[in-house]
Amino acid sequence: MRLALGLSYRGSAYRGWQSQTNGATVQDVLEAALCRFAATPIRVSCAGRTDAGVHALNQVVHLDTDRDREPFSWVRGTNTYLPPDVAVQWCRPVPDAFHARNAARARRYAYVLLESPVRPAMEAGQVGWIFRPLDQARMEASAALLIGEHDFSAFRSADCQALSPVKQMRTIRIGRHGPYWRFDFEASAFLHHMIRNLMGCLIAVGTGARDPAWLAGVLASRDRRLAAPTFSPDGLYFLGPRYDAELVLPEHTPAFDWLPGA
Amino acid sequence: MRLALGLSYRGSAYRGWQSQTNGATVQDVLEAALCRFAATPIRVSCAGRTDAGVHALNQVVHLDTDRDREPFSWVRGTNTYLPPDVAVQWCRPVPDAFHARNAARARRYAYVLLESPVRPAMEAGQVGWIFRPLDQARMEASAALLIGEHDFSAFRSADCQALSPVKQMRTIRIGRHGPYWRFDFEASAFLHHMIRNLMGCLIAVGTGARDPAWLAGVLASRDRRLAAPTFSPDGLYFLGPRYDAELVLPEHTPAFDWLPGA
Repeated sequence: MRLALGLSYRGSAYRGWQSQTNGATVQDVLEAALCRFAATPIRVSCAGRTDAGVHALNQVVHLDTDRDREPFSWVRGTNTYLPPDVAVQWCRPVPDAFHARNAARARRYAYVLLESPVRPAMEAGQVGWIFRPLDQARMEASAALLIGEHDFSAFRSADCQALSPVKQMRTIRIGRHGPYWRFDFEASAFLHHMIRNLMGCLIAVGTGARDPAWLAGVLASRDRRLAAPTFSPDGLYFLGPRYDAELVLPEHTPAFDWLPGA
Repeated sequence: MRLALGLSYRGSAYRGWQSQTNGATVQDVLEAALCRFAATPIRVSCAGRTDAGVHALNQVVHLDTDRDREPFSWVRGTNTYLPPDVAVQWCRPVPDAFHARNAARARRYAYVLLESPVRPAMEAGQVGWIFRPLDQARMEASAALLIGEHDFSAFRSADCQALSPVKQMRTIRIGRHGPYWRFDFEASAFLHHMIRNLMGCLIAVGTGARDPAWLAGVLASRDRRLAAPTFSPDGLYFLGPRYDAELVLPEHTPAFDWLPGA
């Protein structure tokens, strides 16, 4: 049978999602924990690979198993073997044709940014930081230029493995909550480093270093060298994928209420 | 001249505030950073010593120095030498008679508690966790019994160095924000482990394991053996001291808006 699991993790201590020979990735610790719980090797496929230092609130994976256990036993049992900063939040049986990545109709990310003259400490590693004031109207004007189907090559890292740089950006919402800015992105899919590159550009517009319309030129150029530097991974959260409603998979976990602006 | 500094830190990686011969305390890293910035040894005194794993949003310390620098230079310069999870947030000159602990008229703490069938991961170390549902009215009825001046010996650890167990509890506020409970305490001062012991008791009342009136008996007994076990430090935040208004010292830092219910 095929199972889907929803996972939350703090990415600070990991070299990203994807399994590496030197270990220390979220996939490595999850597969090790599943193997101990099920007493048999288990491989997983995820909805969205996250980079080193990037967090996830509802990462979704699927796996195949012949172990007949209650879904909540998978949650509780696997969590026993996971480190404190990674936890399975839910488990659901899914059709054999379900694929965590291929079935995803959209992905959602949030970026949380502290605007303050002084750097963060309590929330270090969990927010980006900018000491210059940002202008919301300028950033919103710039973000509006990205909505729709575009070739996002200008915001793609050299390591990106996506088959196509053309993605559909559905929404970008920008809000302020005390000293914290929150940027919510939803797209058909994202290229490697795409949000961190977009954040660098939106911040350049927000501080006044660039005009809002500049971003349209960067997008049209498809030239990574024209975009701003890749911004810090610290404030980036993979909120999770969206699937067809009939799958009835959870789209939230409790940690959604942890972020400013929840 | 005497300076007051406001400090925020994530306590997870430290053996608490107070300097120890084996180091790894917040006081140790702060004094080392101040020494490097000022190029001379500097000792600090704090408003409220925090335990291992306990966080602070506006810890206040004072120090004496003959170095004539702008207050914001102390902030920025010291932060250069502090680890990412500790940062000075503000600096103000104060009268020579100011003492961070003795001048404090009250201390404020918040406890953040996740109520969920599944343990936290993203916010691990930054919230306590309870998987049983809690009843707000029961906890509020119990908390009301603690308001006023009492001998809090029943909630005091054996290691407590306070001269007197009599403290004045001014307010206890209990609120819910999605899956997170937030408990706000303000008192003249707190005994060692007092809030963690009170949290254990309030949770026992909230789950129905104890009646609300039980807490009055525990308080009156002054017997630590009758109280509930000391609860986890993970969700405990020292919000900071309160001083006389004419000192005009900041009572907030940006991280106050990081907690649920800000």
